[in-house]
Amino acid sequence: MTPYAVVLLSGGMDSLVTLALTHAMGYRLAALHLNYGQRTEQRELAAFHAICDHYQISDRLVVDVAHLAAIGSSSLTDPSIAVERANLHRQGIPSSYVPFRNANILAIATSWAEVLSARAIAIGAVEEDSSGYPDCREEFFRAFERVIELGTKPDTQIALLTPVIHLRKDEIVRRGAELNAPFHLSWSCYTRNDIACGECDSCALRLRGFQRAGIEDPLPYAVKPQYA
Amino acid sequence: MTPYAVVLLSGGMDSLVTLALTHAMGYRLAALHLNYGQRTEQRELAAFHAICDHYQISDRLVVDVAHLAAIGSSSLTDPSIAVERANLHRQGIPSSYVPFRNANILAIATSWAEVLSARAIAIGAVEEDSSGYPDCREEFFRAFERVIELGTKPDTQIALLTPVIHLRKDEIVRRGAELNAPFHLSWSCYTRNDIACGECDSCALRLRGFQRAGIEDPLPYAVKPQYA
Repeated sequence: MTPYAVVLLSGGMDSLVTLALTHAMGYRLAALHLNYGQRTEQRELAAFHAICDHYQISDRLVVDVAHLAAIGSSSLTDPSIAVERANLHRQGIPSSYVPFRNANILAIATSWAEVLSARAIAIGAVEEDSSGYPDCREEFFRAFERVIELGTKPDTQIALLTPVIHLRKDEIVRRGAELNAPFHLSWSCYTRNDIACGECDSCALRLRGFQRAGIEDPLPYAVKPQYA
Repeated sequence: MTPYAVVLLSGGMDSLVTLALTHAMGYRLAALHLNYGQRTEQRELAAFHAICDHYQISDRLVVDVAHLAAIGSSSLTDPSIAVERANLHRQGIPSSYVPFRNANILAIATSWAEVLSARAIAIGAVEEDSSGYPDCREEFFRAFERVIELGTKPDTQIALLTPVIHLRKDEIVRRGAELNAPFHLSWSCYTRNDIACGECDSCALRLRGFQRAGIEDPLPYAVKPQYA
């Protein structure tokens, strides 16, 4: 039987292209979405289901991790902290940082993957364009893969796939376009639910990627600055 | 200022003694309790608060991780699977296994620890008496410590303390007794909420520990077989 891969699917562009790449590898797909209390959760969840429908994925799991909001200290989850406007040249850790978020996500994914006897977990982390999140780096994922190996049953064999980690955003756009990934179903904006704001970090990185790739982003935007 | 240690406090004997040992090391204590949908949650939560009261710990966090029950495949979280009676000589992974539970717990603990600027996380895992859970082994925790190092901010320094990991249960009882740990406030039974059953794996391991240490367990039991 075709082995499962559990794909982390936030509904954003990077996770969409990661899913498209994992699909192209021949895995049977299971899609995992985390609600960690972010402002745009309902819009991201709609994107998750639309993308799953597109790829005919029936194994879907949505997990509420709102405790990460309670643990706090993040503008993504705490309405009292204003989201910073995009500054792609800012140094250091941005205020949208949710402490150790990817480890929480991967731990849940691994629990599910072990139950499904999956052979892989795929996550769309991007090291270069990741705004400095420490848990988006290749070495973090390799260390976590070792934790999976040691912390699961002896017959469990789960590879941790990070197929876009060393790609720039424009390369992600091109790879997605080659695979006919449904970009119109994805959602990246941190701040709005109706149309994308075009100004938050996530919109800026996405728009710059499309602009540098010379491909039109099919999503509607409130404003569409030139970032490239 | 005295640095925090986040202590995982299920309310059982091992976590109680871990807390007592971390207290003796001089850390300021913050206590974290996870509700992962186990049968005896309310009783364990009562033990958690009683132990916190005893040690005058005001920084308490209780996190619901019932999604681990949804992900399932465990007799601890699925009422449709009978809890196995104690068999301390059984080989392999018991049916009470929650896949990758400790990684989920440690990920949450690390998120909180980073917010608190804690210098340590303490967990009462026991390698020898742990019924074969793969994520109770020393090498798993050392690998996770590396993940913490790589996945948190550069100025975050969190040690992962496993002070009872190489102790037998009778040694844990003796260490706790030396430190006047309030065993009467702890709870270990997997199956009952009123008095301990005396027959589940957890009761059997606890009772055998007390019996081998030659110390009376102050908890009331339905039956109290001789395991030593």
